[in-house]
Amino acid sequence: MHVIADLSIIPIGVEASVSPYIAACERVIRDTNLKHRLHAHGTNVEGPWDEVVAVTKRCHEVLHEMGAPRVNTTLKLGTRTDREQTMDDRISKVEELLKQQ
Amino acid sequence: MHVIADLSIIPIGVEASVSPYIAACERVIRDTNLKHRLHAHGTNVEGPWDEVVAVTKRCHEVLHEMGAPRVNTTLKLGTRTDREQTMDDRISKVEELLKQQ
Amino acid sequence: MHVIADLSIIPIGVEASVSPYIAACERVIRDTNLKHRLHAHGTNVEGPWDEVVAVTKRCHEVLHEMGAPRVNTTLKLGTRTDREQTMDDRISKVEELLKQQ
Amino acid sequence: MHVIADLSIIPIGVEASVSPYIAACERVIRDTNLKHRLHAHGTNVEGPWDEVVAVTKRCHEVLHEMGAPRVNTTLKLGTRTDREQTMDDRISKVEELLKQQ
Repeated sequence: MHVIADLSIIPIGVEASVSPYIAACERVIRDTNLKHRLHAHGTNVEGPWDEVVAVTKRCHEVLHEMGAPRVNTTLKLGTRTDREQTMDDRISKVEELLKQQ
Repeated sequence: MHVIADLSIIPIGVEASVSPYIAACERVIRDTNLKHRLHAHGTNVEGPWDEVVAVTKRCHEVLHEMGAPRVNTTLKLGTRTDREQTMDDRISKVEELLKQQ
Repeated sequence: MHVIADLSIIPIGVEASVSPYIAACERVIRDTNLKHRLHAHGTNVEGPWDEVVAVTKRCHEVLHEMGAPRVNTTLKLGTRTDREQTMDDRISKVEELLKQQ
Repeated sequence: MHVIADLSIIPIGVEASVSPYIAACERVIRDTNLKHRLHAHGTNVEGPWDEVVAVTKRCHEVLHEMGAPRVNTTLKLGTRTDREQTMDDRISKVEELLKQQ
C-alpha cells in the first residue's frame, strides 16, 4: 500500500529550540529512499506504508536516545485505490486550478 | 516501545454518513488486545507500537474493501521513556488537578 | 456555524509532566458553556465556532503565562450542513452499529 | 499573538477528487496578507492568530457553499513568546543543521 504521509514530530520535556531533534528525524528520513519534503509544520513523506511507519518509529527511538523523555508525533496517512498519485501531483493539480481563474 | 495513540480515520469519496466506516475500523481495533476508547473525533488506542500501526494499516485496507476510494488517517503517537503511563493515568492525573482548585 | 472540535494542546520547552498545563486549559474550557469531554490525547469540544476558537486562543495565552515558551495545538474542526449532530450522537451511532453484529 | 499554522481541510461526502475544494480554500488564503505555502498535506499559514482562524472559518463556509455536506479541518497552531520566528526561519534552521553533518 502506497501512502502520502505527513510526519510532524515534537520532543517534550526538552528546551524550546527543537530544531536539532527535527534535524535528527529528517536525517532518518533522508537515509531512506522515501520521497520527502520539509515544511514549517512537518515533513511530507511518500512511499510504501511499512517504510513510512518504520521511519516514524526510528525517529521516536532517535529522539529518545538524544534525551527527549517524551516524543509526540502527528502522522497523517493518505491512501487511495482509485488511481496513482504522488505528492507532487497533488500540489500541481491545485496550482493548475488556481491559475485557471 | 509502548505508545498511547489516537486514531482518527476518514473515508473520502463516499457518502457524508461515515459511521459504518468508523464502526468497521472500531471492530478491527476491538479484535486486538489493545486498550481503546472511542471519542467524538477518533479512538484512543494503547499498546505496543507495532500492533498500533498494524491496526491502522488494517483499517485502511478494510475501508478500501468497503468501497472508499480514499482514506485519510490522523494518527497521534505518544511515547515516553521517563516512566510508564497508561491512557487512564493521563486522564485521572488531569482530573485530580482540576479537583484541587 | 456549529462545530464538533478536538483540542490537543502541548507546551514545549517545559518539563515532561505537562498535566498542570493540560489542566489549566481544561479549566478554561470548563469555564465556558461549551460541551466538552477529556480523553487521553485531547478534549472534544462542541459549540459555536467562534467560541471554540476563542477558547483555544485563551488556552495558548494561559500556557504562555504559566511559563511555556512555546505552545502547539492540533485543533480538529468538523462542521456539517446536512443535519444537526452532537458529539454524543457521533459516538452512539458507532456504538449501535457495533452492537448489530 | 503571532502564529505559525498548518491548515489541512477535507470535504466529506463529495467525490474522491477534492482538489477543486482545496483550490477554493487556497484562494481564500491567498486573498489575505498571510504568508502561506501549499504542501501535499495542507498549507502552512503564518500571521496574526485572529486572521488565521478567520481564514479557516471562511474556508469551511466556502466548501459548504460548493456543496460539501461535511468539512473537516486539522489546524495546527504554534505560538512562542521566547523569540520571533517565521516559517522560513524554521525550515532554514533545520536545513543548516543538516548541512553541518
